[in-house]
Amino acid sequence: MENNGLNLIFDRRSIRKFTDQKLTQAQIKQLLEAAMAAPTAMNIKPWKFVVVQDPQKLAELRAALPFGKMEAPCAIIVCGDMNSYKRPLIERFWTQDCSAATQNILLAATALGLGSVWCGVHPIDRLVKKVRIVAQIPENVIPLNVIFVGHPGEQKEARTQYTEKNVFAETYGTPWEDFENNET
Amino acid sequence: MENNGLNLIFDRRSIRKFTDQKLTQAQIKQLLEAAMAAPTAMNIKPWKFVVVQDPQKLAELRAALPFGKMEAPCAIIVCGDMNSYKRPLIERFWTQDCSAATQNILLAATALGLGSVWCGVHPIDRLVKKVRIVAQIPENVIPLNVIFVGHPGEQKEARTQYTEKNVFAETYGTPWEDFENNET
Repeated sequence: MENNGLNLIFDRRSIRKFTDQKLTQAQIKQLLEAAMAAPTAMNIKPWKFVVVQDPQKLAELRAALPFGKMEAPCAIIVCGDMNSYKRPLIERFWTQDCSAATQNILLAATALGLGSVWCGVHPIDRLVKKVRIVAQIPENVIPLNVIFVGHPGEQKEARTQYTEKNVFAETYGTPWEDFENNET
Repeated sequence: MENNGLNLIFDRRSIRKFTDQKLTQAQIKQLLEAAMAAPTAMNIKPWKFVVVQDPQKLAELRAALPFGKMEAPCAIIVCGDMNSYKRPLIERFWTQDCSAATQNILLAATALGLGSVWCGVHPIDRLVKKVRIVAQIPENVIPLNVIFVGHPGEQKEARTQYTEKNVFAETYGTPWEDFENNET
């Protein structure tokens, strides 16, 4: 893990405790620039982002979601926008596109010394409905998740959950470890 | 874009031309370590990965997919494994979980000086069927995408596709730029 870029990926952990310190507008903009640097199917960029910093709205979001307290000073709601002449394409790939953008936000937060946690919303309909109400999200837009982000109030060690059991060589079921050991 | 970690996110571009140089086993393992460092819903890690390096199999994959030639020396098929007692949860979140892992692979490739491209497979049934045949993937496992990866044969400039139009403040429809300009 000597590579700086790779370290970022292993350093990212789900952080659920935060200090009171707010994010700057510049930090939030960097998170959003990272989000919109993700690839999307046919470059359709089906995403929209709602940045929530109002304490009352943050409390409503926490109350709407079953993930614990998470008293972060900022939440980003990552949404898919179904409004487009490419709607059939969007419907097929928007969760993948928006998940790549979400992962970029989490990694950018780590790069900025911030902590974050990805709270899944879609396709749990009761959560979608609650988040819609809090952020006044229209019917044609679907909230995929809520990312809580702030200055970390807990530390976690870098890690991967890599295991060779999940990897196959050439065809499914052919163990990767055998292949790896046979290499010269 | 002064931050090294952030640079990685902006430097990642879809690379479709590659040199003949193969990846080392160590490089491929680093990509997979990065993949399995992604967060997943309730940490269920529903992923499996098939690493394809055999030239004949790579040709079959290219022929199966409608994305052009992409003569990369390696392809990683990212799959969701529906086999689990948590199957209802997996079915809801596996595309999101595996997309986060995929984005990590693309970024790790960039960190290693490699190029990569994400080719969507699921939920296009005819592509799923073709990829299943090439890699002998069983019915309970679904190929989400194929990532072609290798040493880049083309260069692209770092970028984000950030636009303020996609960002709202507090509630959907409230322009972020107004909010941003009002900040002190």
